[in-house]
Formats: sequence, C-alpha cells, structure tokens
Amino acid sequence: MTTRIGRVESAANRQLSEPLPIAGVDRRSRVPLYRQVYDSYREAIVERRLKPGQRLPSTRALATELGISRLPVLVAFEQLLAEGYCESHTGSGTFVASSLPVEPLEPSIAGLSEPAFEAPRRVAPGPAVRAQPGPPWLRYGGPFSIGQVSLEHFPRRVWATLVARYARSTDPAITRYPDALGYRPFREALAAYLRTARSVRCDPDQILVVSGSQQALELIARVLLEPGDVAWVEDPGYWGVRRVLETRGARALPVPIDDEGLDVEEGRRRERQRVLQGRLAFVTPSHQFPLGSTMSASRRLQLLDWARTEGTWVIEDDYNSEYRYETQPVSSLQGMDRAARVVYVGTLSKVLFPALRLGYMVLPPDLVPHFAGARRAVDIAPPTLLQAALADFLTEGHFARHLRRTRELYRERRGALIAALDATFGDAIDILGDHAGLHLTVRFEGDPPDVAIAERAGTYGLRALPLSTLCLEETCRGLVLGYGGLALEDIDQAVRDLRSAIDETEAPEAVL
Amino acid sequence: MTTRIGRVESAANRQLSEPLPIAGVDRRSRVPLYRQVYDSYREAIVERRLKPGQRLPSTRALATELGISRLPVLVAFEQLLAEGYCESHTGSGTFVASSLPVEPLEPSIAGLSEPAFEAPRRVAPGPAVRAQPGPPWLRYGGPFSIGQVSLEHFPRRVWATLVARYARSTDPAITRYPDALGYRPFREALAAYLRTARSVRCDPDQILVVSGSQQALELIARVLLEPGDVAWVEDPGYWGVRRVLETRGARALPVPIDDEGLDVEEGRRRERQRVLQGRLAFVTPSHQFPLGSTMSASRRLQLLDWARTEGTWVIEDDYNSEYRYETQPVSSLQGMDRAARVVYVGTLSKVLFPALRLGYMVLPPDLVPHFAGARRAVDIAPPTLLQAALADFLTEGHFARHLRRTRELYRERRGALIAALDATFGDAIDILGDHAGLHLTVRFEGDPPDVAIAERAGTYGLRALPLSTLCLEETCRGLVLGYGGLALEDIDQAVRDLRSAIDETEAPEAVL
Repeated sequence: MTTRIGRVESAANRQLSEPLPIAGVDRRSRVPLYRQVYDSYREAIVERRLKPGQRLPSTRALATELGISRLPVLVAFEQLLAEGYCESHTGSGTFVASSLPVEPLEPSIAGLSEPAFEAPRRVAPGPAVRAQPGPPWLRYGGPFSIGQVSLEHFPRRVWATLVARYARSTDPAITRYPDALGYRPFREALAAYLRTARSVRCDPDQILVVSGSQQALELIARVLLEPGDVAWVEDPGYWGVRRVLETRGARALPVPIDDEGLDVEEGRRRERQRVLQGRLAFVTPSHQFPLGSTMSASRRLQLLDWARTEGTWVIEDDYNSEYRYETQPVSSLQGMDRAARVVYVGTLSKVLFPALRLGYMVLPPDLVPHFAGARRAVDIAPPTLLQAALADFLTEGHFARHLRRTRELYRERRGALIAALDATFGDAIDILGDHAGLHLTVRFEGDPPDVAIAERAGTYGLRALPLSTLCLEETCRGLVLGYGGLALEDIDQAVRDLRSAIDETEAPEAVL
Repeated sequence: MTTRIGRVESAANRQLSEPLPIAGVDRRSRVPLYRQVYDSYREAIVERRLKPGQRLPSTRALATELGISRLPVLVAFEQLLAEGYCESHTGSGTFVASSLPVEPLEPSIAGLSEPAFEAPRRVAPGPAVRAQPGPPWLRYGGPFSIGQVSLEHFPRRVWATLVARYARSTDPAITRYPDALGYRPFREALAAYLRTARSVRCDPDQILVVSGSQQALELIARVLLEPGDVAWVEDPGYWGVRRVLETRGARALPVPIDDEGLDVEEGRRRERQRVLQGRLAFVTPSHQFPLGSTMSASRRLQLLDWARTEGTWVIEDDYNSEYRYETQPVSSLQGMDRAARVVYVGTLSKVLFPALRLGYMVLPPDLVPHFAGARRAVDIAPPTLLQAALADFLTEGHFARHLRRTRELYRERRGALIAALDATFGDAIDILGDHAGLHLTVRFEGDPPDVAIAERAGTYGLRALPLSTLCLEETCRGLVLGYGGLALEDIDQAVRDLRSAIDETEAPEAVL
C-alpha cells in the first residue's frame, strides 16, 4: 500500500482529457497545497465521482496542469495511497482502490446543509432544546430572572490571582486525571464550611464534588432509582427534579406543600391510597422552591422516620440556604439524620456564580463508592483548576466575606422589591418565601392567570416564572420573582412594568 | 411559633434538677455560644432525649447554670421556636413541641460512624468504585500508564495569563448560566481548528462542548440508544464504551478488528446471524484503541454506507489523532460523510491535560437540539472560564505550537521505547499501533498470560494494560503501553522491569 508513486507516470496527456476533480489550487489559502489536492481527490472518491479502478493522472501531468511543483502532488497521492483510497500497480499508474464499495451516492445528498433523510434518523425520546426562544421565563437575563446573581462585590482580583496560581502550578495533582470524588483540598474546605455554617455532619470522604446541582440530581436518579421506581416530589416544586425522573424512567409522587413544608403524612397516605412505595423524597427544607416555607422540626422528624423505617432516602437540596434575612440560617436536615439516610446537595451557582458549574453532595458513607462509580462513568470528575482555586478561596476567608457582603446586598434588594410590591399592589398580593434566598413568590387576589401574565410581562423584558408551571397535581397560581440579578435602581420600573402586564392581561380590551 | 420567650421564665431551680442536654459551653470555640446551646437542645430533641411536651428551663436559669449572659440563650431558644422544635405557652414556659413524632430512636443508631442498616439500603446496580486500589492497570501514574501526558512544554505562563484575564473579566457572558452547547467563541475556535486540521465539516452551531469524551459517550447512549438497543463495538475496544452501554441498558455487538480497522462485513454478517440490528457503531478510525490500526478507505465507505442505508449512526472517537509520526494525520471519517450520519468526538485530555475535563462533539445538524436538551438535563454546560481561556489559547496560536512541540517530544519517547523493546525482546514481540497516539501495543511470542504479567509488572510500579481485558468475544493477549507520561530517561529501566516481570511470570519457580 505504501509503494511510492514516483515510478508510475505515463500517458499524462491522455489522462488529462478526462475532467479533473480539482479545478485549481489557491496559493493564498492557509490550507497547504498538498492538502488541497488530497482533499479534492478524496472527496471525488468518497462521492464516487471517481470510480473504483479508475486511473488517476500522473503526478507530473497533474502538477503541470495545476501549475504547481510536483512535491505537493506526490505528498497528496502518497497520503491517498496510505489511507487506502488509491492503489498503485507498478509501471501502470495509480488507480482508485478497487476494494471500495461501488454503490453510488445520490447527487442530492452531497451536501451537509441538506442532509438526505432517506432512512429514519432515530433518537431516544427526551427534551430537545431548540435555538428559538421558549416562553419568557425560560429565557435568561432580564428583571426577575431566577438564577441570576450579583457580582458587584465579587473579589475578581483575588479570584484571578488564585486561578492564575494554580494555572501556573507544576504540581501534577492539578493536571492529571482527577479523583472521582473531587480535588481533596477543596473537599476538605467544603467539609469545614458545611460543618460550621450548615450543621452538616461530614468528613471530606463523604463529599462528592459535582458539576452543579443538576448533576447531583442526575446522579441520584441513576444510583438510587431504577426505571419504574417512585420518588416523592414537592408539589409545586423544582422542574429539574421532574426532568431527571423522566430521563430515568422513574415516576413522581407529588406531595403537597404547606407553611411547614412537605406534608409527610399526606405523602404516606398517598402511598397507601395508590398502592406504591416511594424510594426516596426530594425536598428543599431550608427554603421550599417555589413557596418558600421552611420545613418544621416536626415534619423533618417525620420525614427522617419515614426514611429510616421504610428503607428510603431523603434528598436535601439546600440550594440557597446561605441567604436568610430574619433569623439565623436554618440548620440542615442532614445534621438531624441519625440513620445515614440523607443525601445533602449544595451548589456554588447561587453564592458565587453559575458559570463555575460546581456543586457538592454529602453522602452517607456506604453510598460513596456507588456515587463515585456513577460519576466516573458519566464524566470522570470536574476540572481541577477551579476546585483548587476555590479551596483557597474558602480557606483564606474570601468566601465568608463574599457571603456577608452579598447577604447585605440581597437584603437591600429584597427590601426594595417588597416595598415596591406593597406600594404598587397593596393588599391585593400575598408575598411568600421572602425571608430567604434570591427570589420570592407573589400570589394575586382573584388568582389571575399566571401564564398569561408572565407571557405579557415578557413583552416588557420581564422574566417572571408562573407558579402554575411548577405544579403537578396541585393548582396554584402566582409569580416567582428573582431579585439576585436585579439592581436596586431597576426595581421600581420592573414592578411598574409588572403592574402594566397584569392590567393588560386582566382587561385586554383596554390595551387595544 | 415566633412568640418571644422573654416572658416565660419560672421555677428555674426546679427545672434544673433534671439533667441538662448541655454540660457547658466552650468559650474558645469558633462556634458561637448561641449555636452551642441551640445545637445541644436540637440534638437532644432529635434524638428524643427530650420528649415532646417536656418543659425547658428558663433562659435565665440556663444562662446562670452555663455561666454565660442571657442573650445567647435567648437567641438559641428563639431559633428553636422559629424552627418548630419548641413551643411556648404564654406564662407557663417553653416546651418541646408536642407535634413532634414520639417514636424513639434506638440508642445504637445515634452515630454516623456506625449507621444502623436496619431497613434495606437499596441502590441501583452499577459499578461501585472502592477506595482500595484495583489491579495495577487501573491505578493512575507510573510507567506505561495510559492517559498520562507530558506538560514539560506546556506554556504555563501563557495559560495562567489567559485564565486570569477571564477570571478578572466583568463580561457577564463569563459568569452567567452557560449556553448548553458551550461558550460560543470556544466553539468557533474549535470549528476552525477541526476544519483545517481534521477535515471535519462543521460550523460552530454543530459543536457541543462536553466535560471530556466520556461525557460525549454517555450523551450518545442517552440520545441515540434506548434500553435494549444494540450498538456495534470494536473488539478489542475501549472499556468506556461498554460502561455507558451497560448503564443505558443497551447491548454490545462485538465486531472484530484487523489491520484495516473494524470489519464492517463481519459486523453485518453477525447482525444477520444473530437476528438483530445495530443502532449505531462506536469506532476509533484514526488509531484503533487498542490495536492501533487505521481504518482503510474501503472500510470507511462501507461503514458510512451501512449507516446511510440502515438508518444508523457512526460514532467517530478521534481521541488522539493529532499525534501521528510517519504520515500526515489521517482525515476524519466525519469529513467523508455525505448523509450526516457521523457524530465526531474529540478531547483535549490528550493534547493538553486530563484535569481540564473538556472535549467536544460535532453533531449532524438535526441532532443538535436533542443533544443540547440532554446536556442541559445532565449538568447544564461546562464551566465558562476554561472555555474562554482556551478559545484564546487556540486562536492566538499557542495550541498549534504546543501540538508541534509535544509531537516531537512524543516522537522521541516513542522511538526510545521501540528501541528499548527491540533491544530487550528482539523478534519475540510484535509492536502494533506505534505510528500514532501516546501508546503502543505489544504482543509476545507464545502469547503468555497478559493479566498475570501485568499484575507482576505492577509490583515494579508499572501500569501495563492487559489486552485481554479489552476483549469481548475475541481472544488476544498483549500489553498496551502508554508513553505520554514516560520521561526519556526512565524508558530503559521500565522496559527492563517489564522484562523481569515477564520472566518471573513465565518461570515463577525461578523467583522463589
């Protein structure tokens, strides 16, 4: 196959009477000349414009025709020979390899821009994300968007210094394949933080660093559920949980929420009534998403008892417990667990910024190998550089300082938002869950249609999330309003725009 | 629930005749005093040492007993009231909440270190990764370890500068929730690179940035396979493929490899014989893992024809095609595809370093929304900072320069390794796949037991991967030897140690 082709020139003029697959070369292109020749011939062969067994021109004749030296043509032909597109018969020339399949490609399918979908193009069912925008609340950015944070006080210089420190490091631990649990110094820093700030009982070997809390949910579904299994979910609740259940082929048992959080007794009643047994429960006990209630001590103990006696698991999604404005942060459910039944999930997306893609899980010790195995199969581990920089960010005190500063900032925004809502809507609204987190939920007198309002609000650029879209069996209407990314000076206008959107939805004729 | 407790002091001395759940406070602790009191009472309540309805001491009496001021005790009790552990009856005192479940916890399960596994602790089947070391070839680091790279020539200063540039940036695109496809400038830089260096046909909107190629395989199994589906896999082949198939509940159809790569005709024959239809084929056409063959043009066209006519997909894992030592890099299979049936997978783990956790897929345009949706459900997107820095690393020419330098470095290591193997083993070995990549495969005369040799080699610290562990239905023995992380001066010793391990395996009595 690697016979050199210098020997095989003959009858150049006759060969060139056939049209060449290459019209000419572009000397100013950044693509080398040999590559232009190679590509043209390869394409012609792949598209069967040149047929198996067909003779190629001599390198000398082709070089003359193209007005280039013979060397690039020789290199191109050698590559075609090496890769098996061509074969050379000593003394008689170079030919398109006779072993190539002869079945011709139809002319219509010769371009990627219009792929020919002659045979089925099967994909598994699942959510497809289109480029065109969905409803306003699924778009990112704009007043009331959830998941936005403020970086006004983020110590960028410190962060850049820490990141650069590890980017320059020659420590192999920073560049080699990472530990499936995550970079150990980062896990140590997290464990120290979680023990003191969140009353989580853990040591670094129980911590699994994940690429954001969505990955934690995904790993939980993979390790703790099998297709057909049932999981308790809060109703209304976080959509990300439903998504991972669907993907896993598991079913959701909706359990209603009241001002003490998840109604555990009702969950057990539904289990009996529907003759099924939940394998685990997803809960947001510190600040229920979206209603904002704090799970009461009584409910917490009931839920832990359920897990302990039924042999189930409790998933505590503690997504933004660091921000609490009236009392001390509520201690974690995990810290109350005496039967190692709670999987604790936290994220840095809210307290630092979402593009970090870093979160963490605290696992019961016996689950660690299972989650480590799943993580390794899914994507090995998160990038080490960011974990290393964050470990220092935590241990050097920058994280605690940033938390203190942003807590004041968000407290101020929250106050201004509540004041603006009160001034604009007065008694016509109930505000829920404003004591913590980066969003609050508003319910309106008369329960106007929240989806229509949110759609209308979208025309003002607002990103209000309709409560009803978070419901499964419950029916409730309202709007979830994020204020993490909403500057103080923009709050009044945003609330005025919201008012307009509501007025226009309730009395559409007034707008026409 | 939020009644203040200042009013409820009475009969302090009587109450304190019962043992307190708190023996004393530690004034030197970093845990605030109120927190020490709160934690002690909460624990006593959670563990049912204090029973529902039981009266708590007055704050005044408790403060006196603990020798601290009343304020921290008041704060602690207020928090206990707010969270529902306690309730206060005006005028008569503070009590453990009567709504708490009364069922006592058994004393034996009061510690995390010995969780009581009374009820089943069910997990889904899957690989569990234990902390104890597995066989030597699964451990990381040491001569012949696969997946190690050299960073001698890595431009750390440039990299640190680029990373710091974006860590300091106030551009919101760097910190907000990322695009599910990946950071656009990085996708643009990748598309430009892939078009010129790999003959991949793509524009940036077809690229999905992933957290390493394992995630690409995982997403492929999720989007293109359903449980029970069949996938062609190379035999012998990469274990990561088998892992994602198992997780997805899909089946592998092993297809043998020869020196032209995957035997497509044999694959089709096995489909007919076993009465099944593959949904897709995983292939490593540039440098088959582990045997090293380059897929011939004829086989490539056969495989593309299979995909086009049967409505299946071809997964091209182009894991280290950048390193090719004798000819130009082989063009991608994706570039030959005229029916948009190929999913191209590449990684930066080999050409930069593994801890980056960044790879990429080039998708047929109609598959993009499906993969974007799956990515969003799995973990949203990779961290933006590293992508932004890498975009500049590519467009500013550092990547091309690093590739050139490392190609020379690895060429040298490869040459030295082949020379050492030749000198040590002579005609007793066949070396396969040494023309490309960062590893080669050695087969020994007489086919000695490769697992036993690799185990023995492990006692020398060597990480030789037994070929037989990569086989499904085929039987072949040999060792896969990585040299990416093997310094030139360590090669001779490593080969001598390998020789010793082989001698000791073949004639164990000689060692005793």
